[in-house]
Amino acid sequence: MNRKIEIFDSTLRDGAQGEGISFSLEDKLKILTRLDGFGVDFVEAGNPGSNPKDLEFFKKANLLGLKTKLTAFGSTKRKEIAPEDDENLKALITADTEYMAIFGKSWDMHVDKILRVSHAENLDMIKRTIAYLISLGKQVIFDAEHFFDGYKNNPDYAVETLKAAAEAGARTLVLCDTNGGCFPDEIEQIIKNVQKSVATPIGIHCHNDGECAVANSMAAVKAGADHVQGTFIGIGERCGNANLSVLLANLQLKQNYNCVAPESLPLLKETAHYIAETANIALSNQMPYVGGSAFAHKGGMHVDGVSKDPSTFEHIPPEQVGNERNFLISEVSGRATIISKLKEIDSTLEKSDPIVRTVTDKIKDLENQGYHFEAADASFELLVLKERGWVPYFEIVDYKIISSQTPTGENLSKASAFIKVRVGDDFEITADEGDGPVNAIDKALRKALEKFYPSLTKMRLVDYKVRIVGGGDDTAATTRVLIESTDGKTSWTTVGASKDIINASMIALLDSIEYMLHVNGERNFN
Amino acid sequence: MNRKIEIFDSTLRDGAQGEGISFSLEDKLKILTRLDGFGVDFVEAGNPGSNPKDLEFFKKANLLGLKTKLTAFGSTKRKEIAPEDDENLKALITADTEYMAIFGKSWDMHVDKILRVSHAENLDMIKRTIAYLISLGKQVIFDAEHFFDGYKNNPDYAVETLKAAAEAGARTLVLCDTNGGCFPDEIEQIIKNVQKSVATPIGIHCHNDGECAVANSMAAVKAGADHVQGTFIGIGERCGNANLSVLLANLQLKQNYNCVAPESLPLLKETAHYIAETANIALSNQMPYVGGSAFAHKGGMHVDGVSKDPSTFEHIPPEQVGNERNFLISEVSGRATIISKLKEIDSTLEKSDPIVRTVTDKIKDLENQGYHFEAADASFELLVLKERGWVPYFEIVDYKIISSQTPTGENLSKASAFIKVRVGDDFEITADEGDGPVNAIDKALRKALEKFYPSLTKMRLVDYKVRIVGGGDDTAATTRVLIESTDGKTSWTTVGASKDIINASMIALLDSIEYMLHVNGERNFN
Repeated sequence: MNRKIEIFDSTLRDGAQGEGISFSLEDKLKILTRLDGFGVDFVEAGNPGSNPKDLEFFKKANLLGLKTKLTAFGSTKRKEIAPEDDENLKALITADTEYMAIFGKSWDMHVDKILRVSHAENLDMIKRTIAYLISLGKQVIFDAEHFFDGYKNNPDYAVETLKAAAEAGARTLVLCDTNGGCFPDEIEQIIKNVQKSVATPIGIHCHNDGECAVANSMAAVKAGADHVQGTFIGIGERCGNANLSVLLANLQLKQNYNCVAPESLPLLKETAHYIAETANIALSNQMPYVGGSAFAHKGGMHVDGVSKDPSTFEHIPPEQVGNERNFLISEVSGRATIISKLKEIDSTLEKSDPIVRTVTDKIKDLENQGYHFEAADASFELLVLKERGWVPYFEIVDYKIISSQTPTGENLSKASAFIKVRVGDDFEITADEGDGPVNAIDKALRKALEKFYPSLTKMRLVDYKVRIVGGGDDTAATTRVLIESTDGKTSWTTVGASKDIINASMIALLDSIEYMLHVNGERNFN
Repeated sequence: MNRKIEIFDSTLRDGAQGEGISFSLEDKLKILTRLDGFGVDFVEAGNPGSNPKDLEFFKKANLLGLKTKLTAFGSTKRKEIAPEDDENLKALITADTEYMAIFGKSWDMHVDKILRVSHAENLDMIKRTIAYLISLGKQVIFDAEHFFDGYKNNPDYAVETLKAAAEAGARTLVLCDTNGGCFPDEIEQIIKNVQKSVATPIGIHCHNDGECAVANSMAAVKAGADHVQGTFIGIGERCGNANLSVLLANLQLKQNYNCVAPESLPLLKETAHYIAETANIALSNQMPYVGGSAFAHKGGMHVDGVSKDPSTFEHIPPEQVGNERNFLISEVSGRATIISKLKEIDSTLEKSDPIVRTVTDKIKDLENQGYHFEAADASFELLVLKERGWVPYFEIVDYKIISSQTPTGENLSKASAFIKVRVGDDFEITADEGDGPVNAIDKALRKALEKFYPSLTKMRLVDYKVRIVGGGDDTAATTRVLIESTDGKTSWTTVGASKDIINASMIALLDSIEYMLHVNGERNFN
């Protein structure tokens, strides 16, 4: 294995500066614990001086017995003041962490226009801040902000700022592409040049404004950096930071560097999704290694190739990062995909079985109507079962929903739903109300069915997604609804499509209930 | 300016292989027209042999008088058959395009395991397919599938496949990183090596499985490639293809290559968003250059720096790519953003006007309820007008909607809506029916109001978008509706949010009608 590369995660600091990201104290502790369990070397988690929530966070975090090096983040001291009198540094010290990341200016333009101090004063601010913190027993990581832009503008001065930090005792000099506009070859060349003047270990901190943050970080490691900063799922200011989940997989799986314990890599996908859920953002399906589509095969030839040998269309086996292979159902996917899906349901099925043709035709027909089965495995399975003569557990005989509201009123009245179902020879009529028509009919339907199928009390909806499809040119365009449900143990997704959103929701809802009853092996009264 | 780099867009072919992507014939023609207007050199658009929709597409596309080189996509001929007898090639030729992209195998492992032909036979398949198409007057781009993986395994054979294509007359040899797992330094080195043996122009086709597709394509250009393939917003099989919007901005704005006409770059954001909307996917806010957050500043020091000099935290000026700077709502930036928005409505407004505080508070309150005004300028303007005492043109006194359907029935009954509106001292009661509850109430409402405001007959809905916000944990989660309307001349967008989708739609619908009446200066009877 190649040399050790330190992984420094800034999800809780730079990640929190991403648009739409807002962590509660509880969120921060959850993410910290998860990152610690995964085994990143450092977790940077904000500045206790910036708000009382962060002060409380560090107090609680310091009690967790972490293996990771918890790091507080702050800036060099203000001009014309002793470090011990600087309010920001005083606040920073209350974090009570051994490790501190201190950012300072390396781009002379920033020294002139933003700090508005002399070049010598800036060097002094860097030096005295770091020396002071070290005198308190801290280990200091120096973040040379805008280092590469600074180096391109004034290489001598940029290197001077590093030397000031190194002489004061910084353990790592982190070269930052703060504006995110650099490219790998210049990163590599500049780091090689810098190492001629500075012996302290080099780190790298890249933003993704040219979509090169991962490649830039790899170029830095190639040039000799042994500390990489980023955020686990790439969130951060503007276009985000280097995506650590991708970067460490590239470095460790493809280039044999030692980033984390080998047993951590199969937790990669799960950890990335956990952080995304805690941050309340949707992880892009396209995200390398961890995204839902990262090992999804759609083109007919791709599906055929992977069925013969996965390495034909996969750069690594998905299980190495805890992900899984998925064959997508669609009009371009062809018979091979449908056959492999069918084999998942019934492994004895022959390719020549006429159901392959019937199901393929049915899927094409439904996709033309606005359905999409890629994300709705449960609906696909029910469709196959129905083609094989399977009988549904119940039938909706009739329903009516009444919505009646003053649109801008303060006290919304509830929507009301009436429903009549048939199960075997029995009819059940009932009603319920809810927040909106779909919620009302959902509640009424379960109420009617629970009498026959009590296990439905365990079922609940996890997610409800609505898409307008087919041009979406007015309120009558086709609506596609995806419903994810759970029984507490597993979850499944179903799809419905119709010009009427209520009808689309009903179709997905019915499939969802039927699927649970089928999987649980409930007695079918029909 | 540096040399010309050909831009080859495969949104309609490789992009269509992305999970969740499904283009209608109409979608494909719209995207083609837009890409042509933007000025990419090539648009690859599928295979007329794969389905009747594509055959129809090429027929229509060939009548459009495009400047871009429309390209059909297919594979080398089958083994042991003459090219003129190959069914796939026959189908391909029906596309009737001058340019054809033909993919063939360059990785010996694929030749052995997937094609199951001898290495010599594969070379013969490449050579004869290309020679045949050229004899028909076609220009052929050869896509050397898995070239880099093939080269790593057996460099001599991989280069042999290129030579076969070159000798047969291919105009460009496109080296594909089909599995997307390569890194920039190896791409650069391999292309340099290849160029020692082959004189035909080299192209590059990268996938993003290591998040290096853009960097890899740039390394290829640096090594001498002058043709880059990708998809405009990065969609494609698994983790997607090289994102052309980012790649061409990097190449042209940062490295001075000649990719597209300089006047096209300010259309970059708009084009990317148009394609995303047509593909019905949400463009990542973090996407470099074109994403909603690409020039959004949140950290206090970033906002302060950019206010002093944008280059402090922006790698390029956003207007170069048609994007704009955005200070995100926070205690420091919130007021400034709202003041600049208010000044757009009333340029005489003073910063100290108390409406700044009222509107800021109101927006925060509504955003907590699930509203989002970034894309809904018309609703924002009405909100400001209402704070200034403006009186709406009409009032909904009552409405009832009845949905009544058998969810799986063939003949859906229509939803029915009853409505009572007040305009001045008059009351109007009417009803209508439609495809779903929102369509029904939309029609009833217009019917009631047209009596008072005949100009509403010109108004129609352009787009209707539904989002579930706030965790979306069940069918009662908050629903946000965005409605785009037009009067034939301009268009405007309004927003509504509620736990009830019908209520959310009504709020957006009312704003949309009020806005048109206001802008047209209709007499207000209220």
